[in-house]
Amino acid sequence: MYFASDNWAGAHPDIARNLVTRSAGFAPAYGASDLDKAVEARFSEVFERDVAVFFVGTGTAANSLALTAYDRAGGVSFCHREAHVIADECGAPEYFMGGSRLHAVDGPLGRMETDKLKAAIERFPPAFVHGGRPAAVTITQATEVGTVYSLAQIEALSTLAKEHGIPLHMDGARFANALVSLGVSAAEMTWKRGVDVLSFGGTKNGCWCAEAVVFFNPDEAKDFPFVRKRAAQLFSKSRFIAAQFEAYFADDLWLKTARHSNAMATRLAGHFTTSPNARLGWAPEANEVFPILGKGLVDELKDKGAVFYAWPTPAGLDVGPDETLCRFVTSFATTEADVDGIGELIA
Amino acid sequence: MYFASDNWAGAHPDIARNLVTRSAGFAPAYGASDLDKAVEARFSEVFERDVAVFFVGTGTAANSLALTAYDRAGGVSFCHREAHVIADECGAPEYFMGGSRLHAVDGPLGRMETDKLKAAIERFPPAFVHGGRPAAVTITQATEVGTVYSLAQIEALSTLAKEHGIPLHMDGARFANALVSLGVSAAEMTWKRGVDVLSFGGTKNGCWCAEAVVFFNPDEAKDFPFVRKRAAQLFSKSRFIAAQFEAYFADDLWLKTARHSNAMATRLAGHFTTSPNARLGWAPEANEVFPILGKGLVDELKDKGAVFYAWPTPAGLDVGPDETLCRFVTSFATTEADVDGIGELIA
Amino acid sequence: MYFASDNWAGAHPDIARNLVTRSAGFAPAYGASDLDKAVEARFSEVFERDVAVFFVGTGTAANSLALTAYDRAGGVSFCHREAHVIADECGAPEYFMGGSRLHAVDGPLGRMETDKLKAAIERFPPAFVHGGRPAAVTITQATEVGTVYSLAQIEALSTLAKEHGIPLHMDGARFANALVSLGVSAAEMTWKRGVDVLSFGGTKNGCWCAEAVVFFNPDEAKDFPFVRKRAAQLFSKSRFIAAQFEAYFADDLWLKTARHSNAMATRLAGHFTTSPNARLGWAPEANEVFPILGKGLVDELKDKGAVFYAWPTPAGLDVGPDETLCRFVTSFATTEADVDGIGELIA
Amino acid sequence: MYFASDNWAGAHPDIARNLVTRSAGFAPAYGASDLDKAVEARFSEVFERDVAVFFVGTGTAANSLALTAYDRAGGVSFCHREAHVIADECGAPEYFMGGSRLHAVDGPLGRMETDKLKAAIERFPPAFVHGGRPAAVTITQATEVGTVYSLAQIEALSTLAKEHGIPLHMDGARFANALVSLGVSAAEMTWKRGVDVLSFGGTKNGCWCAEAVVFFNPDEAKDFPFVRKRAAQLFSKSRFIAAQFEAYFADDLWLKTARHSNAMATRLAGHFTTSPNARLGWAPEANEVFPILGKGLVDELKDKGAVFYAWPTPAGLDVGPDETLCRFVTSFATTEADVDGIGELIA
Repeated sequence: MYFASDNWAGAHPDIARNLVTRSAGFAPAYGASDLDKAVEARFSEVFERDVAVFFVGTGTAANSLALTAYDRAGGVSFCHREAHVIADECGAPEYFMGGSRLHAVDGPLGRMETDKLKAAIERFPPAFVHGGRPAAVTITQATEVGTVYSLAQIEALSTLAKEHGIPLHMDGARFANALVSLGVSAAEMTWKRGVDVLSFGGTKNGCWCAEAVVFFNPDEAKDFPFVRKRAAQLFSKSRFIAAQFEAYFADDLWLKTARHSNAMATRLAGHFTTSPNARLGWAPEANEVFPILGKGLVDELKDKGAVFYAWPTPAGLDVGPDETLCRFVTSFATTEADVDGIGELIA
Repeated sequence: MYFASDNWAGAHPDIARNLVTRSAGFAPAYGASDLDKAVEARFSEVFERDVAVFFVGTGTAANSLALTAYDRAGGVSFCHREAHVIADECGAPEYFMGGSRLHAVDGPLGRMETDKLKAAIERFPPAFVHGGRPAAVTITQATEVGTVYSLAQIEALSTLAKEHGIPLHMDGARFANALVSLGVSAAEMTWKRGVDVLSFGGTKNGCWCAEAVVFFNPDEAKDFPFVRKRAAQLFSKSRFIAAQFEAYFADDLWLKTARHSNAMATRLAGHFTTSPNARLGWAPEANEVFPILGKGLVDELKDKGAVFYAWPTPAGLDVGPDETLCRFVTSFATTEADVDGIGELIA
Repeated sequence: MYFASDNWAGAHPDIARNLVTRSAGFAPAYGASDLDKAVEARFSEVFERDVAVFFVGTGTAANSLALTAYDRAGGVSFCHREAHVIADECGAPEYFMGGSRLHAVDGPLGRMETDKLKAAIERFPPAFVHGGRPAAVTITQATEVGTVYSLAQIEALSTLAKEHGIPLHMDGARFANALVSLGVSAAEMTWKRGVDVLSFGGTKNGCWCAEAVVFFNPDEAKDFPFVRKRAAQLFSKSRFIAAQFEAYFADDLWLKTARHSNAMATRLAGHFTTSPNARLGWAPEANEVFPILGKGLVDELKDKGAVFYAWPTPAGLDVGPDETLCRFVTSFATTEADVDGIGELIA
Repeated sequence: MYFASDNWAGAHPDIARNLVTRSAGFAPAYGASDLDKAVEARFSEVFERDVAVFFVGTGTAANSLALTAYDRAGGVSFCHREAHVIADECGAPEYFMGGSRLHAVDGPLGRMETDKLKAAIERFPPAFVHGGRPAAVTITQATEVGTVYSLAQIEALSTLAKEHGIPLHMDGARFANALVSLGVSAAEMTWKRGVDVLSFGGTKNGCWCAEAVVFFNPDEAKDFPFVRKRAAQLFSKSRFIAAQFEAYFADDLWLKTARHSNAMATRLAGHFTTSPNARLGWAPEANEVFPILGKGLVDELKDKGAVFYAWPTPAGLDVGPDETLCRFVTSFATTEADVDGIGELIA
């Protein structure tokens, strides 16, 4: 019963097998192979638009380099206070940007509020050199706490960003989970709502190591080959990433794994809702479930083999002194038996 | 007949298959799995010493972060003029070090000469703040031009480095090829000769994407978890690198693939030596062969499907106006038939 | 009636004149002159301890390089939310540190609270690589809002920092104003309370351009000559900074100018207190006064030639919709007539 | 008899006195004062064109930030092997650029040769991501060895740079000395020959600390306020730099001091030429003289109070085993008596 993170799962069998298939033969290195190019073209189909796509090795690299691509001297990029970029990447975005900063913006349930973002940006008026100047807005979709921005919310943030002349970046480490949650197309959730650049994550949803930076305006990517290479993220055998994405997109595997993962989260949430010994901190919208459990129950679950983490209590949530907010993450590899096993333990 | 580079080969079947084997089940992320730990322990066996080992995704990352680990303000690191770090990494080492510099040192056949290194280091006397100060020496083993430093040469360089209080780094992108060429142990070619830190490459010798930074004095690695994470090189599903190395070391696969690769280079060199239409620029010592070919023959070979690159003529080599120095690289996937195919074409 | 900032004043006549005196003759460059060395020695007398002192050109440079000296990979330094380093230096500290971060800590009246700092540091447990790790604590003395840390408060913060193995930096852009406010010695306000490194500012208190980084443990400064030179802060005619400090310290000029400046602030605060049209936001403890004025009065004062800035309302302060919080800064050049001029206008 | 460097001189009396004159009164900080603006306008007159000018504190800062302004990911800037930026700034340009590189180009007497520059640039073809890409060319005028580029040479280099889409930067630490040597206007030596950005130095020619970055196309300077502030080079009492430049330009003081300095060099060179005990390494064209002296004479001169440095022997210069190449630098403060004193000692 492993619910620690979706990155505790290995790779989906179809993806692992495709690496065997693609392991034979010779092909140009550094992203120049036919397979690399075919998979890049596949991204343009998925997004219904010519996109510039660059494979990288980690989500942290995708986020850091996407922000670097739009950075400028004295730059300040805006993100939610709990965003992965500011809380969990050891300062990598700032390091790759050479010192430009991230500015935390608040909002309930992991989502930046438009008015709070507006106030934050306006703290950096363009002509006031001492403060620095806005460089980008970055949102996480799905968020760190398993919620999802609606299309209208994304559009409101991108409109605000554009009013200040800065791009909107989306950290899509759990892009597929958000997409199937909203039931919209990849285009609708991104460039049609004003997203300029996307970290497209495959790793958490069934790949070994497959992430991509996607530019919706390819002109803005002209420096990116150097940005990526300089950052040690151009893989010589790049086709091993391409092969993962090839299998990921084949027969909509990526949507199927995301739907499964989200369904397991919903099922698990149901158990917490119906149990007299637990309640939900908030409703899951993707593949993460945050129940509030008695401390005794937490210990008991762990003793019986459930793996999950406690989670910091966000402002405004009522968690008693004998309770713990916990995070359960589901993945393509989560089974109904695992989920129902938790259900039985808490019944 | 693909001789463009050893990174044009895919993955060795044993390694690709092991990724299928290891794709199932849940395991702690970010390098904390049992498999990660077992493979790390395997490195200590291979090197006959407790080492601190950190998996990363690319050779450029391994080199850049190893140098970053030992860098200091105003740092100058010394490498051969043709070294990968200075010629082929788009400035990544300097970028990760935040601006510290690489200083080119000369020497024939890709190897720094001790006296030239000495003169280079002495250009930066410790108390002269304007010049900067020595930070590290980095050598490539095997070199960029398919030669190998002898144990005595490595020791001479490390002795010199130590006299100036700086560490010796080895870029081992083709470590295995050098090792089997010298016929010594991994310990003998590294820490027993004074190497402090190693970029251990698996990618060119049969892995998809498996590189490691190996510290021979683990105390010097205490900051490295942060150096790596900050650089976006800590992989969530780190076990996919571990799994590659697991198969790489099993039954000495890595030595077998390197021996095969080197043998193919020797066989290919034989063809160039015996052909009336070609001659060797210098003798191969690992898995790269540098023949001097007439321009007409170059075109003919390419027309007939041979893939290889021209190479810049180093100082002191006599290449006629109608000739081209070329590079042929062999790998675990090179077959005798491929090699002999070249032989027939140039006969 | 100029109260915009203490850096709107020029240089104290004694200091300007000393630059004429010291303009003649030849002397070794880059800080090696007898005058440089004599003034460095003077710092050790002022601080009653052997200190390592390095002249730099701006307060931003002093702060940025002091933090750089103690930084490490993944570093997070802690400062008050309104501190100059995080609010007014365009990201310079993060830029010079190559991406390490500043983390805002709250507390009333510009002073970090010990328990809030403790909670902030504990968000970065040493072994959790994803968050980064504590690198330094930096306090501003006097603070950005004209208050002063007591000796006990400084000691509490330094004790906490030491418990976490990190140094305490003091931004002393208004060091002299704080010192005479507390009526203690320079030693008592710094290393005797656990301060490890100080940005010692002369510019705001009567110099043209004279700042220094002071290490109380000279061993920790051994890399700093390179840190400073690499940052373009080693001045060839360094004696022009030394000459300013020479006059600054002569006959305790620096303490006299600071006492005058603080006295003018106290006198000005008296006017605001006694006026029926104004009230103080909080009591001044150095050379900055923050009155709350009606918007009409603000306009009237400006019309009549008073120069000062509005200031963002801190949390917890009650400022009405028709009122504005303002900042008035006094300096060595402020006259009683200027101060009383304000008094008359608001009477 | 001080000939160690032109930065061993203090400040010209007119400049030192103007700091007294300008020390009184209040004025907006951070470059917004009337004096700052007037002096900025004076630069446009001097250069006969609207220029964007930014004061900074050191020549290293001017060079580093000018290059940073035009840098891009993977950037490689080209300079002479002996240039100050690569040899004497402790890596500051690379540090401020965040790791972009300087590439050394050869040429006799401190001047890059056009064909060597062409070959160097062509080593970085635009589409070859592994090498990086050209970002700028930087020349030193006058050079490090007291020679001067002719207008035709500058134009040839700028033409070549423009063919590759990169700007030409001029390090003018000794700009005035070169200008009066050529006897041309500031416009003719810069933008009329294709120079895009200039480090304009006042310090070596009589100021205390006055350097400026001058953009000949002000549109290219739009980010520079942030580049400068982020680099800790925006001085709060900026008018102290403005005041130096005010006196520097008044009555063409800067040209007079440069003419004096150059004349002293010529006079000194005459002594070396006529002495039987010395000869010139090459003819001085600005304010630096490089004689070849017998080692005994070097010692004797030093014993008798002459201060000067030995200098590394450049390739191609014949210096005997008992001889030393030396550098003598003259300045506004050098007297005929000092020069003739050397003459007598070597007669």
